[in-house]
Amino acid sequence: MSPARLSAALPRAMRLLRFHGPETAGPRLGLEVEEGGDVVDLNEAEPALPRSMRAFLESGERGLAAARRRVPGVVAVFRGPEVGAGCPPRSAPPRSALASGRHRLPRAGVRLLAPIDDPEKVICVGLNYRDHCLEQDVKVPKEPLIFSKFPSAIAGPFDDIVHPAESSEVDWEVELAAIVGKAGRHIQESVAMEHIVGFTVANDVSARDWQMRRNGRQWLLGKTFDTFCPIGPAIVTKDSVTDVHNLRIRCSVNGQLMQSSSTSQLIFRLPQLVAWVSQYVALGGGGNSNILVVQVLRGTPVDISHASQQGDEVQCEIEELGTICNKVV
Amino acid sequence: MSPARLSAALPRAMRLLRFHGPETAGPRLGLEVEEGGDVVDLNEAEPALPRSMRAFLESGERGLAAARRRVPGVVAVFRGPEVGAGCPPRSAPPRSALASGRHRLPRAGVRLLAPIDDPEKVICVGLNYRDHCLEQDVKVPKEPLIFSKFPSAIAGPFDDIVHPAESSEVDWEVELAAIVGKAGRHIQESVAMEHIVGFTVANDVSARDWQMRRNGRQWLLGKTFDTFCPIGPAIVTKDSVTDVHNLRIRCSVNGQLMQSSSTSQLIFRLPQLVAWVSQYVALGGGGNSNILVVQVLRGTPVDISHASQQGDEVQCEIEELGTICNKVV
Repeated sequence: MSPARLSAALPRAMRLLRFHGPETAGPRLGLEVEEGGDVVDLNEAEPALPRSMRAFLESGERGLAAARRRVPGVVAVFRGPEVGAGCPPRSAPPRSALASGRHRLPRAGVRLLAPIDDPEKVICVGLNYRDHCLEQDVKVPKEPLIFSKFPSAIAGPFDDIVHPAESSEVDWEVELAAIVGKAGRHIQESVAMEHIVGFTVANDVSARDWQMRRNGRQWLLGKTFDTFCPIGPAIVTKDSVTDVHNLRIRCSVNGQLMQSSSTSQLIFRLPQLVAWVSQYVALGGGGNSNILVVQVLRGTPVDISHASQQGDEVQCEIEELGTICNKVV
Repeated sequence: MSPARLSAALPRAMRLLRFHGPETAGPRLGLEVEEGGDVVDLNEAEPALPRSMRAFLESGERGLAAARRRVPGVVAVFRGPEVGAGCPPRSAPPRSALASGRHRLPRAGVRLLAPIDDPEKVICVGLNYRDHCLEQDVKVPKEPLIFSKFPSAIAGPFDDIVHPAESSEVDWEVELAAIVGKAGRHIQESVAMEHIVGFTVANDVSARDWQMRRNGRQWLLGKTFDTFCPIGPAIVTKDSVTDVHNLRIRCSVNGQLMQSSSTSQLIFRLPQLVAWVSQYVALGGGGNSNILVVQVLRGTPVDISHASQQGDEVQCEIEELGTICNKVV
């Protein structure tokens, strides 16, 4: 694979997002016509759709069908940011950017938001990678390790990560996120994928000092500082992804490749994880969406030389899903 | 204190609750006229008020003022359930229970729900008691220990606690819960109480085996099984409580007193806790309410003979706030 092009967009992939437009008040739902491309204003094109992603997902197949009508027939190779290109400038919305009658906005005129920012739960799975376990002769875990972030930690795909003064070991980690849109408990593995709407890219930011040595060694605080969960750029619907368990995944910092692997390295795959968690905890209760953030690579070792500095640009990418890029400030 | 009467209701205390009425569809907002007493149907009395507690709290002082108009001028001694009385029967709603023109429903006709069931965060504080620390010569912690439950763990004040087959050490613990209704970050201790709307009683149910020995010793799963966070019966507004840091608190199981202390034993009081958490995590973001569940007594020691059995009735009480009673099934 060329380091510059991780992914090729699938034809008619449905890439759901949230954005601030140049002439609209408040967040709106949109479709990315291709990764990094223009945005279709779904609320303009389909006025019956809600403006909140949570409400949209709650509307189920009806909402998805309405959105699907507006997916442009793109067959384009992704020309996303190159490794080292750095985070794109956060455009100031220009006026009169709405182009043509197709409810299409030039990308330069919109600011992408986290595709969902109010899930009921952010469920995280740690220690879920095979390659480094074998490499390091570490025992492969028999059960997934579940922890959480608060929804308030969610940040947009190009938002800044705020480095808290209280930590000196802020660390990044590219992870696969699955959006659970259909409620269930005690879900069987065989039907678990029916509960997942789509996928996005996550950066599981951690304050390692807080995670590992403070707060009675309970990870929560070190994982859930504000802005410690950038996600995006879009929720790519399940049917738009060739094989979620065979996607290349990587992270680079200031243009230097730091992590590179494949979702094929997952010890526990999504159906197992959905089944596992739903044994104990109701998923997607009351029409609420959940995010399942899954560790694919070994956590970065605690090493001050690897800790993020202010000014660092962290780029996380997953093939077919896209790229997020967040500056540490 | 007489074991049978933990609390005396204050005159004109505002006790906000959610209920299912005999002739109404869906959950509604109400006022308890006194602890264990009749319910004023707030949505009937004040039709402009929302039906969700989260939306109500988001409306801030305006909503509270509307509700305050409907608080009856009660000066009554609480005649709640006696220790050992067991959980009250869950009444089948009778027809035509609406009495008089005062939007008042006899208690027998309503089913109380968790006063709020969709907070954005359930933030829990562990190891926050002084008496047992000193008694046992254990070092008093210098920092609060923060963990969480998912909102899906919330159950109503008289709902059943579902004993999961996967645990053999299900344990109860009466705790004080504060409802954070006003958003903030980096909140100063001196103004922290302004962010709290009121208080309620919580039972912090734990599967000790999962908390202490499974899931990589991350407490989350052991704390967040479905139904592991009964709360209620009402949110008693801040102005209705004489001194939240001097309330008697106790728990009994099948009529036997198991825990008894006072909120005066808190190591970290609410202003300190709000300030601490808000240093790292936005509270009440986007108008969302948060629940802060605070440990007041020593956690029950892991001891199989103390583990809950199916059929146990667990009664948690806090002076002035009320009593919840949950059967383990």
